[in-house]
Amino acid sequence: MKALVTGSSGFIGSHIVDELLKRNYEVIGLDNLSTGIRRFLDDARKNEKFYEVESDILKFEDLCNCMQGVDIVYHMAANADIRGGTEDTKIDLEQNTIGTYNVLEAMRLSKSSSRICFASSAAALGEPESFPTPEDLPNPIQTSLYGASKLACEGLVSAYCNAFDMEGYCFRFVSLLGPRYPHGHVFDFVKKLKNDSSKLEILGDGTAQKSYLHINDCISALMLICEDLRPAKDLDNSFEIFNLGMEEYIEVSESAQLIVNELGLKPEFYFGHGKRGWVGDNPFVLLDISKIKKLGWKPRNTIKESIKETTNWLIQNEWIFDERV
Amino acid sequence: MKALVTGSSGFIGSHIVDELLKRNYEVIGLDNLSTGIRRFLDDARKNEKFYEVESDILKFEDLCNCMQGVDIVYHMAANADIRGGTEDTKIDLEQNTIGTYNVLEAMRLSKSSSRICFASSAAALGEPESFPTPEDLPNPIQTSLYGASKLACEGLVSAYCNAFDMEGYCFRFVSLLGPRYPHGHVFDFVKKLKNDSSKLEILGDGTAQKSYLHINDCISALMLICEDLRPAKDLDNSFEIFNLGMEEYIEVSESAQLIVNELGLKPEFYFGHGKRGWVGDNPFVLLDISKIKKLGWKPRNTIKESIKETTNWLIQNEWIFDERV
Repeated sequence: MKALVTGSSGFIGSHIVDELLKRNYEVIGLDNLSTGIRRFLDDARKNEKFYEVESDILKFEDLCNCMQGVDIVYHMAANADIRGGTEDTKIDLEQNTIGTYNVLEAMRLSKSSSRICFASSAAALGEPESFPTPEDLPNPIQTSLYGASKLACEGLVSAYCNAFDMEGYCFRFVSLLGPRYPHGHVFDFVKKLKNDSSKLEILGDGTAQKSYLHINDCISALMLICEDLRPAKDLDNSFEIFNLGMEEYIEVSESAQLIVNELGLKPEFYFGHGKRGWVGDNPFVLLDISKIKKLGWKPRNTIKESIKETTNWLIQNEWIFDERV
Repeated sequence: MKALVTGSSGFIGSHIVDELLKRNYEVIGLDNLSTGIRRFLDDARKNEKFYEVESDILKFEDLCNCMQGVDIVYHMAANADIRGGTEDTKIDLEQNTIGTYNVLEAMRLSKSSSRICFASSAAALGEPESFPTPEDLPNPIQTSLYGASKLACEGLVSAYCNAFDMEGYCFRFVSLLGPRYPHGHVFDFVKKLKNDSSKLEILGDGTAQKSYLHINDCISALMLICEDLRPAKDLDNSFEIFNLGMEEYIEVSESAQLIVNELGLKPEFYFGHGKRGWVGDNPFVLLDISKIKKLGWKPRNTIKESIKETTNWLIQNEWIFDERV
């Protein structure tokens, strides 16, 4: 079996590469290294079944070349910086919507791979009013260009699956945690404290409530659905969306306290105003994960343990702060 | 007041131009004339408050130039050929998704217009299971790249309204009818019968059930919401989606019979197989229009009268068949 992983040097992508190699897959990793981190694939590179291509999903010809003989595509390449979308309004359209169109079109033309695993996001649900938020929330009002692009991508995957007999799985992730997580609040807080351990500035008033998911639980869900069960392989039902998260959540201020405790620091906290850290920030994230739980998956890590583990991984891998300017 | 109408030489666009001129608006019409029809604006061109620009929403600079001093944008330019989307998979992405991004971005940069009326489609709801189909249908499975692109556009309008204090109205139209309608089943049937009045070939088995809307009812709905009421002008609720259709529907075979009666012909009917005329064709279209009815709108034309009127308009304006090859 052969897989293409786009965004292979990214946080989720690199973990998928490692898992697929463990499963004895041949793996092609495609990354433009705009935000990917080369060192994440140091282990994978030792495996002769891993091939690395430094290119971009916007380079259609390269993408088509990568598609030969591929059985499944894990499409993780994306702009993941939600906040930046209001400044550079084109990035989500290009990297996410157009990039995903390219991946689907290259799959269609290759006639090789017809199965896609797509990294969507809880952000595609906008700012919902129902908690825990189910997959089938009607008409989410989009609060970010990032969320709008992820919803657009889901629609593209759905339409391609319907029109061209493809098999598609979209996963709406909450924010993740765990080794290699190179952005998000733990990364930001640890980085700020490394620069000045006497204070910690928090965007928003600290009362936002967020659910998270450990990367290992994320990978186990993807593998269960896309490799082991494949509930959509019956063509009558060729497209599935799954929420992925935990059934618990934590306030940003409590999360910050856990991090400073783990670091053994006692900084002064400075809070912003309002629940939202920025335009498009979601003050409450909690997904209904019963759909995938019914298929036999459940998260094994708690949020608190995951935050501590992420903090410790960052301290032990301080080189990562130099990689991400 | 000044409006920009994109797709101004198209079916809906040209009717909007006429209506806005009646309302004493200054109107800029932008059309690339790829499917627009120059003669539709013959009356408008006599009005000195009408300015015409032959360009494309993909030409960003032209679009920005059109935006100066504009109060509202009626964004109707789009690829409307649902069937063609599986052959030329890029057209819906470019003409619809990227085009709509360009319109929104030009509005944002112009700082002039912050109000947009967007032509979405019942196709954005995919192939729903609930009838009449409400606006808040959860997670529609997309059955066409056209539908996926319209859903993507709605998401973009929603995100721009949220992030940049804009006011957006999306209308999900069923198929329209009335003077100037240059595609759809009435056009196709009349065109086929003009070539050979002895037979009429129908895609699908003729049992598909479709709701339609007369262009005059469509325009009255757009004007009520976007000009007269503006229910989203309160910024807490800056984005609204409305279904637009009739509360009745008709079978394709009955519709065909009405058309041949109106033409005084007795062709032999040849039917295809299955309810769907093509991949992505929707065998039942009936939208729940109670949301906009509560605001005071209702359709004044029946489907049967509208089909007859459309047929007669086509006979009296046979030049249109030469315009559309």
